[in-house]
Amino acid sequence: MAHAGGPGARKDILERLDSGEVVVGDGSFLITLEKRGYVKAGLWTPEAVVDHPDAVRQLHIEFLRAGSNVMQTFTFAASEDNMESKYFEHAEEAIWAVEVLKESGKPLAATMCIGPDGDMCGVTPGECAVKLVKAGAAIVGVNCRFGPSTSLKTMRLMKEGLQAAGLKAHLMVQSLGFHTPDCGKGGFVDLPEYPFGLEPRVATRWDIQKYAREAYNLGIRYIGRCCGFEPYHIRAIAEELAPERGFLPPASDKHGSWGSSLNMHTKPWIRARARREYWENLLPPSGRPFCPSLSQLDA
Amino acid sequence: MAHAGGPGARKDILERLDSGEVVVGDGSFLITLEKRGYVKAGLWTPEAVVDHPDAVRQLHIEFLRAGSNVMQTFTFAASEDNMESKYFEHAEEAIWAVEVLKESGKPLAATMCIGPDGDMCGVTPGECAVKLVKAGAAIVGVNCRFGPSTSLKTMRLMKEGLQAAGLKAHLMVQSLGFHTPDCGKGGFVDLPEYPFGLEPRVATRWDIQKYAREAYNLGIRYIGRCCGFEPYHIRAIAEELAPERGFLPPASDKHGSWGSSLNMHTKPWIRARARREYWENLLPPSGRPFCPSLSQLDA
Amino acid sequence: MAHAGGPGARKDILERLDSGEVVVGDGSFLITLEKRGYVKAGLWTPEAVVDHPDAVRQLHIEFLRAGSNVMQTFTFAASEDNMESKYFEHAEEAIWAVEVLKESGKPLAATMCIGPDGDMCGVTPGECAVKLVKAGAAIVGVNCRFGPSTSLKTMRLMKEGLQAAGLKAHLMVQSLGFHTPDCGKGGFVDLPEYPFGLEPRVATRWDIQKYAREAYNLGIRYIGRCCGFEPYHIRAIAEELAPERGFLPPASDKHGSWGSSLNMHTKPWIRARARREYWENLLPPSGRPFCPSLSQLDA
Amino acid sequence: MAHAGGPGARKDILERLDSGEVVVGDGSFLITLEKRGYVKAGLWTPEAVVDHPDAVRQLHIEFLRAGSNVMQTFTFAASEDNMESKYFEHAEEAIWAVEVLKESGKPLAATMCIGPDGDMCGVTPGECAVKLVKAGAAIVGVNCRFGPSTSLKTMRLMKEGLQAAGLKAHLMVQSLGFHTPDCGKGGFVDLPEYPFGLEPRVATRWDIQKYAREAYNLGIRYIGRCCGFEPYHIRAIAEELAPERGFLPPASDKHGSWGSSLNMHTKPWIRARARREYWENLLPPSGRPFCPSLSQLDA
Repeated sequence: MAHAGGPGARKDILERLDSGEVVVGDGSFLITLEKRGYVKAGLWTPEAVVDHPDAVRQLHIEFLRAGSNVMQTFTFAASEDNMESKYFEHAEEAIWAVEVLKESGKPLAATMCIGPDGDMCGVTPGECAVKLVKAGAAIVGVNCRFGPSTSLKTMRLMKEGLQAAGLKAHLMVQSLGFHTPDCGKGGFVDLPEYPFGLEPRVATRWDIQKYAREAYNLGIRYIGRCCGFEPYHIRAIAEELAPERGFLPPASDKHGSWGSSLNMHTKPWIRARARREYWENLLPPSGRPFCPSLSQLDA
Repeated sequence: MAHAGGPGARKDILERLDSGEVVVGDGSFLITLEKRGYVKAGLWTPEAVVDHPDAVRQLHIEFLRAGSNVMQTFTFAASEDNMESKYFEHAEEAIWAVEVLKESGKPLAATMCIGPDGDMCGVTPGECAVKLVKAGAAIVGVNCRFGPSTSLKTMRLMKEGLQAAGLKAHLMVQSLGFHTPDCGKGGFVDLPEYPFGLEPRVATRWDIQKYAREAYNLGIRYIGRCCGFEPYHIRAIAEELAPERGFLPPASDKHGSWGSSLNMHTKPWIRARARREYWENLLPPSGRPFCPSLSQLDA
Repeated sequence: MAHAGGPGARKDILERLDSGEVVVGDGSFLITLEKRGYVKAGLWTPEAVVDHPDAVRQLHIEFLRAGSNVMQTFTFAASEDNMESKYFEHAEEAIWAVEVLKESGKPLAATMCIGPDGDMCGVTPGECAVKLVKAGAAIVGVNCRFGPSTSLKTMRLMKEGLQAAGLKAHLMVQSLGFHTPDCGKGGFVDLPEYPFGLEPRVATRWDIQKYAREAYNLGIRYIGRCCGFEPYHIRAIAEELAPERGFLPPASDKHGSWGSSLNMHTKPWIRARARREYWENLLPPSGRPFCPSLSQLDA
Repeated sequence: MAHAGGPGARKDILERLDSGEVVVGDGSFLITLEKRGYVKAGLWTPEAVVDHPDAVRQLHIEFLRAGSNVMQTFTFAASEDNMESKYFEHAEEAIWAVEVLKESGKPLAATMCIGPDGDMCGVTPGECAVKLVKAGAAIVGVNCRFGPSTSLKTMRLMKEGLQAAGLKAHLMVQSLGFHTPDCGKGGFVDLPEYPFGLEPRVATRWDIQKYAREAYNLGIRYIGRCCGFEPYHIRAIAEELAPERGFLPPASDKHGSWGSSLNMHTKPWIRARARREYWENLLPPSGRPFCPSLSQLDA
């Protein structure tokens, strides 16, 4: 399988999606750079771009090597060359923005920070999707705040809403790298352990392969990430969808598919882990028997 | 508090420990670089040093910024300028090595990959420590294979063994960044989820502050890390022991002590998390209600 | 506080509810007698009434002592003197039954085996309640299949449905004595551990006091039980609602409210448990670190 | 297989054990009668014998039907016709008692309330066993305070101690019906949820079959119970050891071995549970995702 930036590296995002290409987003900048010592939690300001450009560039390189074929800036200001995207909590606000932005002539991606229960005013995901497309968005989806399975649940509702209304749009999903089945409408920031105790919730690479496959099967073609996605999570998306994309990412040089690199281990019980069924069915323990499985929300 | 490499940056490791300095190890290279896409699990060979020197240098920088005041190479060949150290599974083997190495004239640190149950031949941690010191080691301790609380339990036994024998040595601990209360003698490699499903076991920064404090209180002055330690874990050691060391690490510019950077958050219930008691007492859930808390060992 | 069968022992169930009395159901016969060795799981036939009348009578006595002021037979044929009640899975079937039974002239209680997601045909709890009351039921509610919090969630939806339709009826809830947050529409029988591995889900007495209080606050006045309720669970309902009912059950002679009987224990840390806050806030562990918290459903 | 009280119903307990018979103890009186409303927790006094003899008799009948072939009184005074037994926390105290009691001429069973860590003075289980046998006990073992696997771990140490000393004695184990891997020396009373929040720890019948088999394989021939054992737990011992004992208990009329009574269930996925492998490998969830798996001890 060829290793490359993939076809269409120069194309506009909408052209790519229109041509059936799978777009893999990049990973988490703020939370990842916080753990590397370059961003301050709470403020989450992006001065690292200026103060520590090497650290930011290194992370960009890692995401690209892992198979991302877009680069979002990590500034939250989201002003890329070839796409305007914003994250919204309220359907009304998102619609206004789409209406303004479509005058720019760029392809419009409107992603909302909502879960299956909809926005703060009770607008359901299906209704949100319909309103955004009617306002002019070419790409709709969800972004941040919720983990993989919760985000896909919301996307399913968006898709059903569009289908029921006879509308079409490209679908985009950007999940957290954390499992958050216990989130309320406010998303993961309302979990008591945000932002300094989320470690036990970090997704494994296998969780993310599952997420990528389910997203693809739902018809989503822009499959990205948000807070908590490390380079190896992006690689997991790229590896899962390598058959569809036709190439493996560069960082797969350093990764055996489904644990196959363990097949030379000296201990036979570790060699026995070098197979897909093993990792697909693993239920990883927390090593924390004094901790619960789920959180009671703060708010 | 001054920010600096700290006093004694030019001194030999034994001189530093003799003078009462606290030495903070650096972090995990192989597992961290695997997640960044530069090392292949199973083989764990360090060719990234040659192929991707920028990525390796970047990680070194992060650990130094986080407060480490030694640099171990990440090659496992462990040939630093000013210390010879090796990791051993068997007391006998460790003793031979110490006897050979002491002829080199360098200060000898002998750390063993053992848990509270001792080595594979049933030599207890206390006996191991006694034998190593008698053979000539100036620094003894444990390294890798076990999580923070398990490693400290072993260190306590080593210390008691030395005290009972009327011997003295500097103590060194290098824990995993993973919680492993369910490990057997073989350590974390025998956990069914090694190496690709350890995420839920990753220690929080608060777990590591606790580890650093307990290690210090036990009399350990070389406090390091092994697999799974990220830069922010090293910073947690450096912050916990800042009063003793007299300085904060550079990366603390980007970290409010005990969550204090949350005190300006717009949501009051998140602001309420900006205090030590909150994070010290948090029991972080896994977000995985279908997974157990502990593993049955493979071997 | 007086100990007695309580007021109204001779009244018809509807008269009691109309007069504002709180009716406390009895407990679980089949599952309880299975554990005592008199009923065969799977068949769940009630021949114990004939073969081992003493065992059945003893259990009836225990429930009465615990504060129940109705006696349902344990035959599932539900032909009491003064009430006709049936358990239904489908709204349509329930409605037909109510229409037939109202000709009998007895007060009609129609309880459905449904959870918050409604019946198998997608009729919501609110719609079910409305249909049943329109068909002639004087008492509506849920019965069996779901644990305390799930059952109350369904009751809330039923109540809202009735309010929205401008209808009134007495409300009745009969929860399982097991926690089942992971149930689907089919209820607890679809949990993989039904019926021989439900032990870790058994409610504590404090869980049941909470259930009784919440049910009362929702306006439910017939508060009962289903499978898994032992005598001490019934007593917990009776104790929680003693202020409203005006009397404690006989079995409270052997129970200090909120653990107060521990106040003479010789060990001070056990004495310290003799208070309401302690038991109200306890999060009881399973003692099973190798088991998950929730089940993946079989069907 | 014959149903009967079993052979040797008239024999002395020591004669039975000497002849190779397996003796199955009866179940829990105080905790079971507390849940039935006849005993007050904290005081745990046995006045129910006088006040509610029917309830006590009923429980005795249930244990006998379940396969017990001894009757211990539930008074804790332990003055049976044909055996003197006492429960001790301290080895010294136990030895004094044995020395006094052996003058009575009755067979002496000395069971200690200790776990694998030994008595409060640090006397190991192996040493305890040796001292008791040297003092004259014919039967030694552990009783109460610890769950099945912990109790068997202690018994293994007792057996090894006796073997190392070249001594022989009959072995007796009486476990709690609760899982207590997190107990300290003081046993289950020091768990924060004792005595009113132990429900999630209750053993399943399958747990008890495993306990009975492991006890038998260890050479233990008096296999009993303590707090938390219900009639169906006793039946589980009797069913597991039916091949060795040569008969099933009467209550097995109401129990299909290994869930076989489910083989006629109308739902195919429930029928699929009618087999040994299913129940043997089940990991039953707590249904309590907000609760931890293990407790931090109060003392």
